[in-house]
Amino acid sequence: MKVLIVFAHPEPHSLSAALRDVAIRELETAGHEVRVSDLYAMNWKAQVDRADFPALTEDRLMPAAASKHAFATGTLTDDVKAEIDKLLWADLLILHFPLWWYAMPAILKGWVDRVYAYGFAYGVGEHSDTRWGDRFGEGTLAGKRAMLIVTAGGWEEHYSPRGVNGPIDDLLFPITHNILYYPGFDVLPSFVTYSTDRFDDARFEAAAEALRQRMRDVETTAPIPYRKQNGGDYVIPTMQLKPGLEAPGTSGFALHRRG
Amino acid sequence: MKVLIVFAHPEPHSLSAALRDVAIRELETAGHEVRVSDLYAMNWKAQVDRADFPALTEDRLMPAAASKHAFATGTLTDDVKAEIDKLLWADLLILHFPLWWYAMPAILKGWVDRVYAYGFAYGVGEHSDTRWGDRFGEGTLAGKRAMLIVTAGGWEEHYSPRGVNGPIDDLLFPITHNILYYPGFDVLPSFVTYSTDRFDDARFEAAAEALRQRMRDVETTAPIPYRKQNGGDYVIPTMQLKPGLEAPGTSGFALHRRG
Repeated sequence: MKVLIVFAHPEPHSLSAALRDVAIRELETAGHEVRVSDLYAMNWKAQVDRADFPALTEDRLMPAAASKHAFATGTLTDDVKAEIDKLLWADLLILHFPLWWYAMPAILKGWVDRVYAYGFAYGVGEHSDTRWGDRFGEGTLAGKRAMLIVTAGGWEEHYSPRGVNGPIDDLLFPITHNILYYPGFDVLPSFVTYSTDRFDDARFEAAAEALRQRMRDVETTAPIPYRKQNGGDYVIPTMQLKPGLEAPGTSGFALHRRG
Repeated sequence: MKVLIVFAHPEPHSLSAALRDVAIRELETAGHEVRVSDLYAMNWKAQVDRADFPALTEDRLMPAAASKHAFATGTLTDDVKAEIDKLLWADLLILHFPLWWYAMPAILKGWVDRVYAYGFAYGVGEHSDTRWGDRFGEGTLAGKRAMLIVTAGGWEEHYSPRGVNGPIDDLLFPITHNILYYPGFDVLPSFVTYSTDRFDDARFEAAAEALRQRMRDVETTAPIPYRKQNGGDYVIPTMQLKPGLEAPGTSGFALHRRG
């Protein structure tokens, strides 16, 4: 497979970087081709602003409209175009980051905000009363796989189903479902390590071995069974899950997984 | 009250900016004092990196440790110190942003990542087997109020309890509970407007009037009834909600609201 790792940690000698290198070695050993977008090393521009749309002639910046025009006319900036080309090249996308305030670091959110152009990652397909786009299981990136590698400073129990932080799969749902599944990726379960501020060599090796196993299985691991928007489970165009499809008592994000 | 609005939209003539000005006028008319951190206008630096810790002597940047040291020794950068002073000054914090990919724009996430220093917003209070910090309802910012003003391009139905995006309150929970409640804020219900790409004058006026009402009520609106971490509802130190406290069938983020 062709693998793109988008990596977001400012320290080249961090635990995150060490795990990234473990993943790269395992993938390359298995014959996969790996490219890395190391956002800090690239000095990636995080904020969406007018400079992203050099061909914009309107006085007023409307980000979605500007993105649509720039993608359609090939006038996105070169750094964004290069990332889009990498996404089109890859069979597997890995977003690899430390969980900062229960979400992606700003620099990685800025990668999503800027690279996910209108017409590329959203605004794809027919939008009408009978169809609301190719998204959530369809879209430009359909047929490709994606997953998260996340390091969290807090305790695993704090992210458990009853933990005060909220369950980790729910905290990551806005990324796995709404950023990765949205433009079509099949999303694999996230790989998360906890209490990373208190890692010793033994814990690192255990995490590294678990990560190696995930990398060995990456072509065959079953994706999270999210429901396709256009697979018949949702009312169109309000996109609400039809009654009675879920197991009794299911609510919230869990509604959008089958079975 | 003293009100700090942290605002994150790149266009001074955007719908978001117009709503911000509506809020400011209403607050000032009621006699409140308002300050605005307009992140784009300030050219706010989004990414956490080594430049945030000018006194750092270690070769390796460990962000939490560096933040702890810089806060304790008064060596945070001036832009971060100024935001911390504004937070200490304010009685009410408003984070005001467009929902981009179901989350904050990168520049605002970078405000959180950089301003929420160790010792200020986290790492506060005793951490032991019998107490895990002053957080989730306690902390440096306890006694203050906070809320979100959010503009979303998508349909309201898509964010409803069964909508494909996930329920809006769950999408915002990582901010309202894990960023605002965490350091002690009482968090008011979020103010959200939908389908903002299709606003006409009548819809703007309706949204503006609803926002004015929220601003008029801001001192008396009941906060979201999140559970205090140290209020007896959680097992310490694993911070899991004790059995039997929730209504039958409750799961996920909703566990952390009383009643």
